[in-house]
Order: sequence, then structure tokens, then C-alpha cells
Amino acid sequence: MTRLLPLALALSILFPSAALAAGEDPSLPLLLFLVLILLTAKLMGHVSVLLGQPPVLGELCAGILLGNLGLIGIPAAGGLAADSFVDIFARIGVVILLFQVGLESTVRDIMKVGFSSLLVAVLGVIAPFGLGWLVGAWLLPGESAYVHAFLGATLCATSVGITARVLQDIGKSREKEARIILGAAVIDDVLGLIVLASVSGIILAADAGGQADWMSTVMVVLKAVGFLAGSLLLGTFLTPRLFRQAARLRGPGVLLGVSLAFCFLLAYLAGLAGLAPIVGAFAAGLILEPVHFQQFGDDRIHSLEEGLTRLAEFLVPVFFVAMGAKVDLRAFASADALLLALALTVAAVVGKQICSLGVVGRGLNRWAVGIGMIPRGEVGLIFAGIGMTLVLRGEPVVDAATYSAVVMMVFVTTLVTPPLLKRAMRPRAAANGSTTGDPS
Amino acid sequence: MTRLLPLALALSILFPSAALAAGEDPSLPLLLFLVLILLTAKLMGHVSVLLGQPPVLGELCAGILLGNLGLIGIPAAGGLAADSFVDIFARIGVVILLFQVGLESTVRDIMKVGFSSLLVAVLGVIAPFGLGWLVGAWLLPGESAYVHAFLGATLCATSVGITARVLQDIGKSREKEARIILGAAVIDDVLGLIVLASVSGIILAADAGGQADWMSTVMVVLKAVGFLAGSLLLGTFLTPRLFRQAARLRGPGVLLGVSLAFCFLLAYLAGLAGLAPIVGAFAAGLILEPVHFQQFGDDRIHSLEEGLTRLAEFLVPVFFVAMGAKVDLRAFASADALLLALALTVAAVVGKQICSLGVVGRGLNRWAVGIGMIPRGEVGLIFAGIGMTLVLRGEPVVDAATYSAVVMMVFVTTLVTPPLLKRAMRPRAAANGSTTGDPS
Repeated sequence: MTRLLPLALALSILFPSAALAAGEDPSLPLLLFLVLILLTAKLMGHVSVLLGQPPVLGELCAGILLGNLGLIGIPAAGGLAADSFVDIFARIGVVILLFQVGLESTVRDIMKVGFSSLLVAVLGVIAPFGLGWLVGAWLLPGESAYVHAFLGATLCATSVGITARVLQDIGKSREKEARIILGAAVIDDVLGLIVLASVSGIILAADAGGQADWMSTVMVVLKAVGFLAGSLLLGTFLTPRLFRQAARLRGPGVLLGVSLAFCFLLAYLAGLAGLAPIVGAFAAGLILEPVHFQQFGDDRIHSLEEGLTRLAEFLVPVFFVAMGAKVDLRAFASADALLLALALTVAAVVGKQICSLGVVGRGLNRWAVGIGMIPRGEVGLIFAGIGMTLVLRGEPVVDAATYSAVVMMVFVTTLVTPPLLKRAMRPRAAANGSTTGDPS
Repeated sequence: MTRLLPLALALSILFPSAALAAGEDPSLPLLLFLVLILLTAKLMGHVSVLLGQPPVLGELCAGILLGNLGLIGIPAAGGLAADSFVDIFARIGVVILLFQVGLESTVRDIMKVGFSSLLVAVLGVIAPFGLGWLVGAWLLPGESAYVHAFLGATLCATSVGITARVLQDIGKSREKEARIILGAAVIDDVLGLIVLASVSGIILAADAGGQADWMSTVMVVLKAVGFLAGSLLLGTFLTPRLFRQAARLRGPGVLLGVSLAFCFLLAYLAGLAGLAPIVGAFAAGLILEPVHFQQFGDDRIHSLEEGLTRLAEFLVPVFFVAMGAKVDLRAFASADALLLALALTVAAVVGKQICSLGVVGRGLNRWAVGIGMIPRGEVGLIFAGIGMTLVLRGEPVVDAATYSAVVMMVFVTTLVTPPLLKRAMRPRAAANGSTTGDPS
């Protein structure tokens, strides 16, 4: 590399415009990554559909492939997993996915299943937390109870992105079970945040030899609840007025532009409140109802859904491929890590099956709800990443081997959900005599 | 700021998850910028339409407003113009715009007007280059001839983005004049690159006291011509095969995904060849013809155009707002800079009117072609930026005052084009008895 530097400098001086275009134009690496992402995502998505699986599974595998080509000596996609521009397109992609899924339900729909969602979410946090703690105590007896508690915390949150996309892929995102899962996943995000803040606070306090600062945990709760209450108020009062005014605007793409602005605003506010931006995007989708757009005319309402679908076709695969690319297959090389990963995965899956007991009402597919809560996705990775930065008596709370085990747990829970959920949702559709076909 | 640092550190330790979401989630500033961009773009676009102007004019003004709010003490949009994530979304946006505009013509369409385009492009580079040199010699007599030549070079390239968008806004992008302009703008990009490389090479050689390295200029030409010839070959042989295979893929959004991948690939290759990525995107659009998609079925061809329109409604305003935000209104404060700016603007406008003499054929609207070539947009800014980094006898070739004058020239040529081009394209439509309405 260092031998190339003078050459690069000389080239950039001799060919200022060429250097500008080839070396400095910051979009060039991104353009190549997008080509690789789109082609492999559509190819592997095709293979998934042939195998009777949702396309999202193929996109995840496409990412794993691209992210690990370096292992077999092909550096073509090197840097994809770490590229900040790919990352930002992925983040906007998952925000648009959750907005799209949120638009398919209303606040009232979620309120109807609210009690079930709340119970499912609470059980779905308590059970995996306890099981994760037990796994830690069993397989890492040398570590302190704080580390075991932290392992439990990494199992709490659900990755609503995977489940939302699978439900969409199989055409079931308007079913009652889907609403319970999505509502519970949103509450889960809040609960997971509280658990993580509490456990981290306790560990920090223990490391400093003092008492945990409960005020900070209370603040986290207040901010998250404040955001959710605030968005509901916004939904009732501000949204109809905003869209009545927007309907008067002339020019291309007003409805799509204003709707996206509303989605991004709530995603931003959710982020400020300490929640994941996707929670805000989902809330924005719930709040917006077709009645708000009536003055735009029926054609333009249709064009909003159509428009979001097209945006999603481009940006959402970027998210799932980028997520797959973050999986480092070398983590699967250690036997100890494999055992810990296996135990964590079982705890993660069993823990979320317990939560299906929280479903209230008859004739509901509890099995599907429990499966829908399984994937940990990027949330588990984020939690584990925080654990690597937390230090207790000079040692990181989550060491490299444990992190690999968490990565594997995320990998397995994410990959098993699409086929399992597709299978679990099928009997109910048949019982209903529903004719909704699979996209295959 | 420094007093806040310990507080921020304390907060990020006490609230690791909150810090992660609020401080570290890299998408939060972008989400807020996108909200501001989309809302002001749609609002000002509305005002433009009310005033009988194309929406793109409103989007540019929205950018100027957001970029200069700091001058009246409102820091809300501070950093928008310099934000790298906004910049990357803008770049992908203009790539998609040029792909969309390219799709409206075929290689054959451009070949038919090829001789006109070539003459227009060559005249449109020679005339502004000479006039810009004269302006430099007149108003900057103290500077060397190299500086005057460089000023001429900054006037050469046409910003095809503005013209393409205006033609699209007024529903005229399939007219013969539109093809001549777009073809000439693509050739202009190649010629501008050659002029810039030559002038830069001469200045560098002069500064070093030696002879200019003509080989490097020849290399620039070879790479650019190689790219254009290569994409035509690709168009004839590879594309039908690629899309015949792609038509077999199952899963959502295959046609949009594969088409975007093709567009991004050519944009990337153009960048590697030292051209602007938008030249590659336009070439990709020209190469793809409806016949390639026949096996996808008529519905899906329609959905490709529809899909690109939706993507463009989101991403293209980001480009024009970001371009407007780069205008620093403080540059208008100096009388000397204003005079130089005025003279450069006149040279830029008159120089491109001369090029309309190159239009071959009867019944064509030469006036519209000359006006369509006026906007310099981001290309002029890029050239001037390179001039600021070139050093001759210890002084930058383009100093701050000259740069401001170039910025103003870009600002004026960009803002006058939409209304002028809309007016110039109107008589022909009336003469044809065309009923194509304006989007207003």
C-alpha cells in the first residue's frame, strides 16, 4: 500500500480530473457495491422462491456470501460490510420497510390487540433474559453474575425488520397475528432498552464500586414513553391538518414526498428519544390512514403504496444483504463458541415460545406469534457490541468468543424464522379458506 | 462546546443505549436533513408551479434557502451542504435522473442527431473557452495567461442534470431538440474533461518549469472514448442476453433491481474512465430499450418506468436542494467579484448561444438548443474547485474572489435556464399542434 501512495499522488497531480472522478468521486465504491448487492439479492431471492422460501432468506444469504468472499481469496466485495454509505442506504431502507408495514395497520388495529402484544412483549423479555442468564451461569462459570445478566439482556429484543419482511413476503402482514407480533416487537424495543440501560448501569456502578443510578433508567423509560404518547397525539391532531394542507400543493411527487418526510421525522424523533429509528417509522405508518389522503384523490393514494413498494424494492435488499455481510463465518471455527452459541440459540428460541402464552383470545395462531418473535437480527448485534465496550474489573463484559457466540445466535435465529414462520402461518390461511397466494 | 464534552461523555456512559441511538446512530442527522429537504422542495416546487416555472427552480431555491439560513441566525440546516450522507443520496439521485432521461431515447435516436450534437458540443466548448479567456484577460490583467485559460475552461462543461430535469418537467424530453442537447451535453463532458486535463497539465508543467505532458491528455481521451465505445458494444451484445436471463428470475422487483444494477454498473465504469458517473447512467438508459424487457411482460415494463419515477421523486430533489445549498450568498457581497461574475455569466450564456449554429437540419428550434446548453451547475463548481487546488508560482490558480465569481456564474446560469427553456420550447409545441400540457 505505502509503495502505491507516491504513484497515486503522482497520478492525481497528472490527471486531476481523472483523480477527481476515479479516486475522489465518493459515489464510485458505493455504485459498485449497489451493483453487487442488487444482482446477488435478486439471484439468491430467486433461488429462495424456487425452494419455497421467502426472498428475504436469499437476500440474507447473498449478504453472507458477499461478506465472506474474502475467506476463499476473492476480495471483490471487501469492505461492503464496513462501508458507511452502504450502511446508511441500509438504514434508510429498513426505515422505509417499517413505514410500509406500519401503513398496512392503523393505531386502532394495534390497540385492539394491545393487551396481547403487551403480554407477549413482557413475557418475551422476561423468559429469554432468565434463560440467557442460566446459559451464562452454566457455560461461563468463571465470569461474574453481571456478565451472565448481560448475556440475558442480549437475548431480549426482537428484530422486527425480519419478521415484518417475512410477513410481507408471504402476504400476511394484515393478519391479526401479524399485528400482535409487530405491536409486541415495538414494545419489546422499549423493554429491551430499559433492560439494557439497567444492566449496563448496574455493571458500571459495580465497576466503580458504587450503587446503580436508577434515575438514569427512569429517564430512559420516560423518554421512550414520552415519544410513543407524543406520536399518538400528533396522529390525532396534527396529521389530518398537515395532509389537508399538503393536498393543495402542486408539482410532482407531493404525496410521496410529504409522507416520507413525516416518516423520517418520526424516525428521527424516536432516535432522539433513545429508541431505534424504525420504531418511529412504524409509528408513522400506523398514524397515517387512507382518510388523511382522501383529498389527494384515489389515484394518488394508490401511487403512495406503489411508490413505497418501488423504493423498498431498491433499498430494502440493501439492508438485508448488508446485515448478512456482517456475519463473519470464521466465528464458527471454535468448539467452545459453538457450544455457547447453541445454548444461547436454544434459550433465544425457547424464551420467545414462552411468550406466545401471552396471546389473549380464541382461534389465534399462538405458534405463529412465538415464531414471529424469534429473530434477533441487528438488535442483538448492537447489544453485544455495547457489551464489548463495557468494562468490569479491567475486562470487557463481552469478550471476543462470547461475541462470536452471540453473532451465531443472531445468524441462526434470523435464518430459521423465514421458513418456520411461512410454515406456521399456512394452516390458518387454509382454515380460513383464504385464497391469498404466495408471491411465488 | 468543550464544557459540554464531559457531560456528553457522562451521558454516553450512563445511557449507553441512548447514546448509541441518539448520538451514534449515524442516520439521525440524515433523517432530519431529508425531512427539511423533502418539505422545502415540495413547498418551493409548489410556488414555482404557481409562478408558471418548472418545479426544479423551486428545489434549487429551497436549497439556497436551507444553505443560507445561518446568515439570518437560524442554524437549523447547518451542515446540510457539507454532509457526506446528503451528498451521496444526491449523487445517486442524479444518476437515477439521467438513467430515467436516457431511457426515453435509444442509441439510434441519438445517432440520428449525432452530427448536430457533435457540432453543438464542439462549438459549445470553443466559444465559451475563448470568451472566458477574454474576460480573464480584461478583468484580471495582473494574472498570467494560464489563469485566463483556466477561467475559460470552467465555462466549457454543460450541467446536463438541470436541462434534463427541465425538459422532463415540461414534458419535452422526447423532442428532437432535447436529444440534440442531451447528446451534446454528453460529448461536452468528454471535451470538457480533455480541456481541463490539458489546461491543468500545462499549468502544472509551467509551474515546474518544464513541458506539458501530452501523453496524460492522450490517455484521458483514450479512456473516455474507450468507455463510450465499450458501452455501445455492451449494448449490442450483452444487454439482450442479460435481460433474457433476468426475465426468468422470480421474486419481487427483479426488473427494477436488475435495471438499476445495469445503470449503476455503467455509472461506475464511466467514473473509472474519468468521466462523470451520470454520463454512464445516461448511456445505460440509451442502451436499454423496451425490446430488452419484452419477456418481462408489458405490465412489468410499465412498472419499471413507474418505479424509476417514484425513486426519482424521492432522490432527485435531494440532488437539486443539495446543489442549491452549496451556493454561499455571501459571495455576492464584493463589487469586484460581482463584475467578474457578470462578465463570466455573459460569456457563459453568449458562448453557448453560438453553439446553436451547429444544429444541422430544418425546422429545428436552434434557440431552444442554445438555451438548453446554458446551465453550468455542479460541473462548473467542480472545475473551479480543482482550480483552487492548482498552484502556480506559489499562488492558487483560482483565488477565493474568482471562485465566488464562478459560483455566481453557476448560480445565474442554472437559475435562468428553467424559465428560458420552458419559454423557448413552447412555440414549437404550439406550431406542431401538440397538446402535451405542462404539469401545472
